[in-house]
Amino acid sequence: MKKYHLMAPGPTPVPSEVLLAMARPIIHHRTPQYEALFVEVRAGLKTLFQTTAEVVPLACSGTGAMEAAVVNSLSAGDAVAVIRAGKFGDRWLELARAYGLNVIDLTAPFGHTVDAARLADSLKTHPEVKAVLTQHSETSTGVLHDVRAYAAVTRQHDAILIVDAVSSLGIADLPMDAWGVDLVVAGSQKGLMLPPGIGFCALNEKAWRKTKTSTLPKYYFNLTDELKFVAKNEVRFTPAVSIVVGLREALRLLEAEGFANVFKRHDRLARATRAGAEALGLELFAKATPSPALTAIRAPTGVDSEKIVAAYAQSHNITIAGGQGEMKGKLFRLGHMGYAAEFDVIVALSALEQVLADLGQPVDFGSSVRAAQKIFVEKS
Amino acid sequence: MKKYHLMAPGPTPVPSEVLLAMARPIIHHRTPQYEALFVEVRAGLKTLFQTTAEVVPLACSGTGAMEAAVVNSLSAGDAVAVIRAGKFGDRWLELARAYGLNVIDLTAPFGHTVDAARLADSLKTHPEVKAVLTQHSETSTGVLHDVRAYAAVTRQHDAILIVDAVSSLGIADLPMDAWGVDLVVAGSQKGLMLPPGIGFCALNEKAWRKTKTSTLPKYYFNLTDELKFVAKNEVRFTPAVSIVVGLREALRLLEAEGFANVFKRHDRLARATRAGAEALGLELFAKATPSPALTAIRAPTGVDSEKIVAAYAQSHNITIAGGQGEMKGKLFRLGHMGYAAEFDVIVALSALEQVLADLGQPVDFGSSVRAAQKIFVEKS
Repeated sequence: MKKYHLMAPGPTPVPSEVLLAMARPIIHHRTPQYEALFVEVRAGLKTLFQTTAEVVPLACSGTGAMEAAVVNSLSAGDAVAVIRAGKFGDRWLELARAYGLNVIDLTAPFGHTVDAARLADSLKTHPEVKAVLTQHSETSTGVLHDVRAYAAVTRQHDAILIVDAVSSLGIADLPMDAWGVDLVVAGSQKGLMLPPGIGFCALNEKAWRKTKTSTLPKYYFNLTDELKFVAKNEVRFTPAVSIVVGLREALRLLEAEGFANVFKRHDRLARATRAGAEALGLELFAKATPSPALTAIRAPTGVDSEKIVAAYAQSHNITIAGGQGEMKGKLFRLGHMGYAAEFDVIVALSALEQVLADLGQPVDFGSSVRAAQKIFVEKS
Repeated sequence: MKKYHLMAPGPTPVPSEVLLAMARPIIHHRTPQYEALFVEVRAGLKTLFQTTAEVVPLACSGTGAMEAAVVNSLSAGDAVAVIRAGKFGDRWLELARAYGLNVIDLTAPFGHTVDAARLADSLKTHPEVKAVLTQHSETSTGVLHDVRAYAAVTRQHDAILIVDAVSSLGIADLPMDAWGVDLVVAGSQKGLMLPPGIGFCALNEKAWRKTKTSTLPKYYFNLTDELKFVAKNEVRFTPAVSIVVGLREALRLLEAEGFANVFKRHDRLARATRAGAEALGLELFAKATPSPALTAIRAPTGVDSEKIVAAYAQSHNITIAGGQGEMKGKLFRLGHMGYAAEFDVIVALSALEQVLADLGQPVDFGSSVRAAQKIFVEKS
């Protein structure tokens, strides 16, 4: 028997408590039961997003919520600055172009980040910029962009800061109100430990003001109309009911752990994974601040990283992820977000040692686990 | 103990087999396991839609799929004819206007339908019409529009026929290819007996041709891009994985029953419900062909239909639905679609007898059940 382990950078495993809650008979979305459910979820989401603003759930994946952010705050021909250093940065670019926006493209090589000073310069040169689009955690490279510093720039400017927090919400600290992030986009299948199927948009007052002048066409993703229903604890269209039921359970689990502890846990898992990889002589892909959600690791010289992904699957029944786009074959990614704990990292590293040895690499067995253990036994 | 019964016109109850399949540990969507799942689902959907065309699943509710149909086949300023005789007809109108389309509004009073001859006349007067938007089953009034006759009209015309089959797919016969329906839109939470969260679009060649000239902006719902992934048994964006897993189980259940039997079952449940209501002296709301998905019934004179809905909930733990919009207070709706069988109708009617008596109406107890039983014992 090889137990199955899902260790990709999302979707992440769903706790049994949540799976079983979602397996209960379905409830109707226009009933007092659903309203009571939504009241609890609505309050929990505000805590999770660290905001007094409303968080609007949508029946879609994270990309749908990214689209909702764009079509509600902007108009065709508007200038936007895109922070782009990975596949999800590319997605902002594609989305912006699909909607006829003029993109100021702030790129960095994959594995790197874009410095806030560059953003500040760009906004000085382009005062017409209406929005800055960025990821918080860039899932394709394992880099955490400095959203706090970006927000310090946009707070001095008319542009709003739109942050894709799909792989950082409930993973890395992102105090929306305190930092002045204007629009946070997220999804259900990462830090929230749920199946994919719900996207979220949270807008502060500056972002809601932008929606008043936005002329991009929208209907399903019309957040202004959606907000009227949220405010009444109702839904405009049929929601993904079973996932909303799971969301209540997931929020309860996170609240019971305490959000500060949730962030600390992810930080510890990430540091242990990095220490383990480096103990095996591997090179981390992130040259900027690494994300606490996942660790991207370069394959050893001469080894195709797809072989590492395949060996994890075939020899150990573990799903991890390879590189995307231009990074295919070069790196592999270990997820440690959401429903992930210390011994999951031990499993991932132990498997890595066996995989590397099977691929003919020299391995000092136990060395990666030793490095991880040293992190885990630190007094926090 | 009052057992809970969900008897609204969607979302419908989810069979335990499906709930438990969805409660299994989540799988990753970029793995051979997901591909194998999708291969089966892809074939099953074609059978269900009665088409050789690809059926494109999207992570959204039915309204999202309606939007996908519009933004992929049309351009701003295009003329469309909207068949509108209920709340979901209104939704087509709102959607079309949100995207800057010129609407030729073919309305009928709620409870009625729009005759195909009117559509034919309208297309003669307005040869510029690019698409006809209609429901098959109008869930707000319980009327089944004559999509077969509409398709006979649009087949002679350049316009495509876009049918919202959210509450008819797997309920009422809708042979897409045989009738020449160009674009069928559906959702997961009605005939498919699943939680809400997946929408579907199926386009025939005439509809795909329209997508080539469509200039409405789109990204998340770009069906042309999505199709490239479907053809490879892959997904463009993270899908609603758990619901796709449930979809495989639901398709297996429907295939085991046989689609012809599924349609017969719904027809029998609908006829029995109507016979039961009429046996109690109640008036059916649908003045045109009634939908096999649900039965809309006028409240007795002097009785607010919301009181009937409330009594079902409070006295019997049964969720049914009232009237929407201008029909609020006037009618109540009993769903008998998806995971619904003969004795569910017996329960709904028995409860109705008690509810009416509690509201001071004269009731011949057992009369509605007798009428339903006579339908059920018919040799089919």
